[in-house]
Amino acid sequence: MIKHALSVTREADFAAWYQSVITEADLAEESGVRGCMVIRPWGYGIWERIQRLLDDRIKATGHENCYFPLFIPLSYFAKEAEHVEGFAKEMAVVTHHRLVSDGKGGLVPDPEAKLEEPLVVRPTSETVIGAAFARWVQSWRDLPVLINQWANVVRWEMRTRMFLRTSEFLWQEGHTAHASEAEAREETRKMLEVYRSFAEECVALPVVAGEKPENERFPGAVETWSIEAMMQDGKALQAGTSHFLGTNFASAQNIRFQNASGELELAQTTSWGMSTRMIGGLIMVHGDDDGLRVPPRVAPWQVVIVPMLRDTPEDEALVAYCRELQQQLAALSAFGEPVRAMLDLRPAKAAGKRWGWVKKGAPLVIEVGGRDMAGGNVSVIRRDCLYRGDGKLDSRVVACADFVAEATILLQSIQTSLHTEARTRLDANIHRDVTDMAGLQAFFAEANRTPGWVELQWSKPTGPALDQVVEQLKALKLTIRNAPLDAAPAQGDCFFTGAPAVERILVARAY
Amino acid sequence: MIKHALSVTREADFAAWYQSVITEADLAEESGVRGCMVIRPWGYGIWERIQRLLDDRIKATGHENCYFPLFIPLSYFAKEAEHVEGFAKEMAVVTHHRLVSDGKGGLVPDPEAKLEEPLVVRPTSETVIGAAFARWVQSWRDLPVLINQWANVVRWEMRTRMFLRTSEFLWQEGHTAHASEAEAREETRKMLEVYRSFAEECVALPVVAGEKPENERFPGAVETWSIEAMMQDGKALQAGTSHFLGTNFASAQNIRFQNASGELELAQTTSWGMSTRMIGGLIMVHGDDDGLRVPPRVAPWQVVIVPMLRDTPEDEALVAYCRELQQQLAALSAFGEPVRAMLDLRPAKAAGKRWGWVKKGAPLVIEVGGRDMAGGNVSVIRRDCLYRGDGKLDSRVVACADFVAEATILLQSIQTSLHTEARTRLDANIHRDVTDMAGLQAFFAEANRTPGWVELQWSKPTGPALDQVVEQLKALKLTIRNAPLDAAPAQGDCFFTGAPAVERILVARAY
Repeated sequence: MIKHALSVTREADFAAWYQSVITEADLAEESGVRGCMVIRPWGYGIWERIQRLLDDRIKATGHENCYFPLFIPLSYFAKEAEHVEGFAKEMAVVTHHRLVSDGKGGLVPDPEAKLEEPLVVRPTSETVIGAAFARWVQSWRDLPVLINQWANVVRWEMRTRMFLRTSEFLWQEGHTAHASEAEAREETRKMLEVYRSFAEECVALPVVAGEKPENERFPGAVETWSIEAMMQDGKALQAGTSHFLGTNFASAQNIRFQNASGELELAQTTSWGMSTRMIGGLIMVHGDDDGLRVPPRVAPWQVVIVPMLRDTPEDEALVAYCRELQQQLAALSAFGEPVRAMLDLRPAKAAGKRWGWVKKGAPLVIEVGGRDMAGGNVSVIRRDCLYRGDGKLDSRVVACADFVAEATILLQSIQTSLHTEARTRLDANIHRDVTDMAGLQAFFAEANRTPGWVELQWSKPTGPALDQVVEQLKALKLTIRNAPLDAAPAQGDCFFTGAPAVERILVARAY
Repeated sequence: MIKHALSVTREADFAAWYQSVITEADLAEESGVRGCMVIRPWGYGIWERIQRLLDDRIKATGHENCYFPLFIPLSYFAKEAEHVEGFAKEMAVVTHHRLVSDGKGGLVPDPEAKLEEPLVVRPTSETVIGAAFARWVQSWRDLPVLINQWANVVRWEMRTRMFLRTSEFLWQEGHTAHASEAEAREETRKMLEVYRSFAEECVALPVVAGEKPENERFPGAVETWSIEAMMQDGKALQAGTSHFLGTNFASAQNIRFQNASGELELAQTTSWGMSTRMIGGLIMVHGDDDGLRVPPRVAPWQVVIVPMLRDTPEDEALVAYCRELQQQLAALSAFGEPVRAMLDLRPAKAAGKRWGWVKKGAPLVIEVGGRDMAGGNVSVIRRDCLYRGDGKLDSRVVACADFVAEATILLQSIQTSLHTEARTRLDANIHRDVTDMAGLQAFFAEANRTPGWVELQWSKPTGPALDQVVEQLKALKLTIRNAPLDAAPAQGDCFFTGAPAVERILVARAY
């Protein structure tokens, strides 16, 4: 019977476990500001790694970064009726630009400083970026415009959950304009693939890429594509979206260009985003009952060295031994970057530090005591396989030189093993044997197990027929996640309507 | 007589020239949102370089990045009376969290969704970060806390100027807490030195580091230190500040710790920031009448290759020749990083592209025509010395292999030459021969030249005596910039009061 580092297990209470990982791994905390969290150094360090690696891929596909205003005048939203409909209920509105004393020791918005036109804190930037595109694009020679921004956005949320749903969150939003519909559609799919491969290769997060159904489209989009990841409780998490907007935004915002024949045409636009929500997915896919396990490519520190200091004169030699190891590791390259190795010299007990790094999920924790040093050794803990068969912590004593020689291979092995474990779970929990609504209800009703997702085929109804399907699923707390790109062709009848099926879709509970 | 690329020269109208560089170099533009700008790819690319290089130095000095909320509850400001005084007049206030239709096709803030407590869009984050420090710090073992965040902040501005003064701007803000006053003072000076060396080494911006006078301190600070740069019109620009806050914020926010003897003490805190304002400084220090000149270390592209395409079948070989060159350059290392070389294949005339890159200030512009290729050559334009003695563009034909062999040396040479040019100008324009107010008035009254700064000595008056000095200077539109760290010791009488002088200060017009 293993005594785990967290006081609550995934099986006992998944939601409490999730919160416990966030607290115990020092990822984030309540800020005291409604709906907003503080992202602490370990959590932000993971986000910085995600930013760096995703940004490289966004730039490698020809996009440039820009920065657009935080505030969007109210009138910009009025232009795009359908888009507003989707966001109108949840925006932070700036109405004043000055505070004054209330005469009772407090402060109030200055009534003299009321804005003529209220400003909305951006929930997303299609409107303000579209206005810029309208200025930038005159001729076909100005196209395509391929830009991205890293920014904070605000969507007022009544019920919040760290990383998954907060009023303010961090993301990147790509926005592009193209001369032809085909090129804009290709861009939409290209960025979906960037997200898919980034999630799989960097975050070790297996995902299913596919098209969202009509009812789940981004407000104003012609097509919305997503990548969906499976959490350990079997729920789905949408981890990135890519939208083909057609000429909907271009027409509202007058993004027109003269084509090669001299005629004016509306540009075709796209947008796509990935956010700090990805960290919530990372936790719920890779975490275990001892805390987080961070895939090496996105770990702020890949190797943490903990010397067993005793406040004796021998400490000096031990620190020198560890520093030498740190330098040797930093000179290595893993995944095309220098290995990130840190030496933990904080004034705290070594056992406390060990468990701190285990809970944070550093891929390799290296402990070095006097006996290790005397033998030219180190004690290696692999975070992805923490315990031996007998339930004891698997701390392996190896020669220091051997550890350095194998460190990059170990890191690659951990990256792969986390991905394989999650991929196996995802594949095993997509069920294709549910054939009717009663079966669906039974499948998701069964308690105390990971139900996973159900793949079924449908006739892709629209309008009221689709509404009916959505309502039926909603009664079971289910949603359609997407129609997987790599699904088998449909054959047979629609699960809902009995009409001929045209595609396969995934149905699941979701965050 | 050189025909320059910009239609307005620095000498003719410095303010119009500044705006013209921003427009012609595609750095930024008006956004349509009051007081906010759009930072375009070339401008944002420079900011990304600044971020990357400064962030490395902030991390190398032991700081970790975090993220704190955009919104700060009004009550947080009420706690810090002196701090509020300094900012209260210029903050954006969120009062509603939802919009509704106004029944006339428009939208209005929903009266039903008025916030109980208004939220301020952060003008700086001492209050919200101090609240976190109060949670994090219990014992001396928790200290120091050394954190930083990259964020957008908002200070409502009535008169805005791109990069120099906008309602929203981007910056990093460091915040630290320490057990002892000495350590906090050392941190304040350490980060001042990080800013100084970063400005000099990376942005090639010569600066004077020193302490701000009492009247120019950050609201709530015990000491404020700054780096000041000299623009080509002789005005000063504060390009970074570092504040020792003593226990002022700790006491307002209850940041207390148990010291080694078990007693409760207030922590000593610091904060320090550098912003997108640095790009305004870069323009006004390195720009010339042909546009911007970007120092290679912060240039998004260090070498831009422009093939002279003619829409003929020969283009293919030319592009291949250029691509080969690009790959050879990208394999080189300058300033410890891979050389950033781009191949400009946009559908536009080569001459237009050349002048576009000259105006943007790419350090090296390489033109390659059919004749160059036939001879195994390239034509090299160095942006820091664009013209020959006879006023013709200095485009030098060199063997391609020779150019590749010398490219990193050229980049280093451009970095150094921009710095030397600016350093020489700064040193030459600090005047130490002004001895009284009449002389000061005469010095700054003289028209049509770069007046520069005046160094004088003073008795460092405080209270009403200081107010009087500030008023006298204000009448001449002058301010005290700082008391330079490396100034000679004071000797003699105070410029203003006649009392014995205790230090030297710089007096200047400023942005």
